[in-house]
Amino acid sequence: MSYFDVASAAPLHPVARQALQASLDEGWADPSRLYREGRRARMLLDAAREAAAEAVGCRTDELVFTPSGTASVHTAVAGALAARRRVGRHVVVSAVEHSSVLHSAAAHEGHGGSVTEVGVERTGAVRSDAFLKALREDTALACLQSANHEVGTVQPVEEVAEGCRAAGVPLFVDAAQSLAWGPVPGAWSLLAGSAHKWGGPAGVGLLVVRKGVRFAPQGPGDERESGRAPGFENIPGIVAAAASLRAVRAEAVARAGRLRELTDLLRARVPELVPDVEVVGDPVRRLPHLLTFSCLYVDGESLLHGLDRAGFSVSSGSSCTSSTLTPSHVLRAMGVVSEGNVRVSLPLGVDGSEVERFLEVLPGVVREVRERLGAPVAGAAGDAEAVTVDAVGLTCPQPVIELARAIGRVRPGGTVTVVADDEVAAVDIPAWCFTQGHEYVGATRRPDGAAAYEVRRRSAP
Amino acid sequence: MSYFDVASAAPLHPVARQALQASLDEGWADPSRLYREGRRARMLLDAAREAAAEAVGCRTDELVFTPSGTASVHTAVAGALAARRRVGRHVVVSAVEHSSVLHSAAAHEGHGGSVTEVGVERTGAVRSDAFLKALREDTALACLQSANHEVGTVQPVEEVAEGCRAAGVPLFVDAAQSLAWGPVPGAWSLLAGSAHKWGGPAGVGLLVVRKGVRFAPQGPGDERESGRAPGFENIPGIVAAAASLRAVRAEAVARAGRLRELTDLLRARVPELVPDVEVVGDPVRRLPHLLTFSCLYVDGESLLHGLDRAGFSVSSGSSCTSSTLTPSHVLRAMGVVSEGNVRVSLPLGVDGSEVERFLEVLPGVVREVRERLGAPVAGAAGDAEAVTVDAVGLTCPQPVIELARAIGRVRPGGTVTVVADDEVAAVDIPAWCFTQGHEYVGATRRPDGAAAYEVRRRSAP
Repeated sequence: MSYFDVASAAPLHPVARQALQASLDEGWADPSRLYREGRRARMLLDAAREAAAEAVGCRTDELVFTPSGTASVHTAVAGALAARRRVGRHVVVSAVEHSSVLHSAAAHEGHGGSVTEVGVERTGAVRSDAFLKALREDTALACLQSANHEVGTVQPVEEVAEGCRAAGVPLFVDAAQSLAWGPVPGAWSLLAGSAHKWGGPAGVGLLVVRKGVRFAPQGPGDERESGRAPGFENIPGIVAAAASLRAVRAEAVARAGRLRELTDLLRARVPELVPDVEVVGDPVRRLPHLLTFSCLYVDGESLLHGLDRAGFSVSSGSSCTSSTLTPSHVLRAMGVVSEGNVRVSLPLGVDGSEVERFLEVLPGVVREVRERLGAPVAGAAGDAEAVTVDAVGLTCPQPVIELARAIGRVRPGGTVTVVADDEVAAVDIPAWCFTQGHEYVGATRRPDGAAAYEVRRRSAP
Repeated sequence: MSYFDVASAAPLHPVARQALQASLDEGWADPSRLYREGRRARMLLDAAREAAAEAVGCRTDELVFTPSGTASVHTAVAGALAARRRVGRHVVVSAVEHSSVLHSAAAHEGHGGSVTEVGVERTGAVRSDAFLKALREDTALACLQSANHEVGTVQPVEEVAEGCRAAGVPLFVDAAQSLAWGPVPGAWSLLAGSAHKWGGPAGVGLLVVRKGVRFAPQGPGDERESGRAPGFENIPGIVAAAASLRAVRAEAVARAGRLRELTDLLRARVPELVPDVEVVGDPVRRLPHLLTFSCLYVDGESLLHGLDRAGFSVSSGSSCTSSTLTPSHVLRAMGVVSEGNVRVSLPLGVDGSEVERFLEVLPGVVREVRERLGAPVAGAAGDAEAVTVDAVGLTCPQPVIELARAIGRVRPGGTVTVVADDEVAAVDIPAWCFTQGHEYVGATRRPDGAAAYEVRRRSAP
């Protein structure tokens, strides 16, 4: 079995396990009590805070422990916005933030705030000038992740932080995906992290609020963790989180080069071994262990099941693998194909032979799914002037498969119109055209809710 | 060392430890993922939910896991209130609820809601008729704990739930202190619990919302735990919490009788061995393992330190042991003395000899503190008609000590006036009069913020 999904959750690091077990005996009591069990618990908590603060690069009194990365994000956004209410109620976020950030922004909008979502390049990267241009007089907070969780693209946090500082706007950084690799550089104001992403236990998040940054915790008052994280502290978890962050950092520095070689290998070999694949994300400015690609004419769920049967655990941003049946907002914002999407995120200790075996297995798994779905043969050409395809009632990836088949029936410069009611087609048809070099003419919404997507076949082969 | 403070946090139960360690290997992955590590995590989570629901006496789809008892309380109150906003914005709480409930009510008040705090008897018990009388047409939610966390008094939840049901008002029960001892009876609507109170790990709370009860989670959306507890699930903690609840229940049934004998012994012997002690809380309708008493003319902090040095870890509701320097709101609502307060909550496996040793040690510890503070000699009587004592600038327990000394200088029927600016005197002077049989005449606020408390010495000795 090869687990290639550490970007979702990393298995518990041995150091985390040791620290957890050791502190179960010493860290169960209430750290606010005066008796010896309480004092011991307090000492563990203080030591963990020091270790975590050192790894993050902040003061100990700037860092609190929360129950999760999500809790850190929700608290950071709500607390920063409330404290700057007099300045205004405008928030700037990138379009590829983690859902916890976007949901926080949506909740703020639901309470009368306004949100600007800054788009990204096709690599998933925010352009710092575009981001900073979105700042306004009434901007209370800006939010930018350190690196993207789905495609691994590293964001220009340092430049954006500098610009935010100049504009007097606090910058919140969701650092959940990058903290294992190093501290986040730059003059950011607030930061969130999540222990289970770096091999710490579930149930522990970090929230950092720099000194001098205005912050007003929301919700009912509570004395613990400087009033920023209500509830009894999970000290064994916190100790394990801090100890493993330190341990993982040391290994990450040593292993980053090797992981980058392996993901470079995957980035190069996957499109060679599997036809009609798009590798997405920035090829250079990216996390060392993560890569993402999309396989045309394949549904993500079948692909994941096939890989699971072959012994590989990966994740997908395709719509058919999520409970909401919408494709990843990250892939959508990037304008890349979301069908047949696979994210590979390698564990620190991965063996090169596992990656080799993945490359052996993948082509067969994709081929099998494509055959079952009746994917088109590449390169076919016909002489029709215009073809219309009815794909109403079909779901991803079928509308794109129907389009690709129909393209084989028209002459260069001819058009295909696909009528589809699957919302994902609105993302995948333009993205497919981009990857194939055809012209996406546009879509017309029909009265029954379906849309007619028009595509012109490229002239040169 | 004897740890007598399980009402704050119980040491990890051996079953919790085993379950935690076993599930660290199986329960670290994301339970929403389709691959095998995710499916294994999901199975553990589902099994834990079944076990917890059985112990609570609810359906599995009514129970979610949260990061803490406090999180459960905050979520329960906010979600229930939001869902019944059209009915009204009035909340009824008992005056002796846990601070997480009172802080939730205060937050609601801060957003324009209204709160009725129902007082309690001197035993700490709510009268169900008084509680139900507080329900109004616009009452959106009523909150009553199953048992009090500071004095152990069991509340009439079943009767109150019946009355609330008749009035169409949902009842939220904070069951944090009682879940180890059995399910909460009656037709309650929402319930919260906290694993570290029963020997489970920190970082796990329970939230139950009965089917048919309107509930609208607040804050940013999140798919996990039915949208009621955002953030990645702490599955090893959850498994340990559920396993230990089941184990603790079995032991609690077997040990309750013995624990009640031991706390009965303490209730009887402490006032015999230590002069000027008031045992508080209901002598009969109470948790089996918990008792609370207050020692006059002693400060809680010195008492706790003395007991800690003698090897006993207990807690206190006295003002001088809390970071806010206010006495326990529970003791204040009961109208009992808050100075020199000690809460003893015995672990399930306590040995009778530990309790015997506590009884040996306690009198000396109290005597030592009293001598140092210059506590009065009981029974002295003088012939003065009226004495005024200046206690401005003195803090608990000094104003009461000054009063007790002065009483020794006046004739029966004479008066003592104590001028004090310590807020705690407003609680402790009337409560002291009650325990000593003197008449508390009243207080007059002075322009400088201090108050003059007038006490009339009882006529008969």
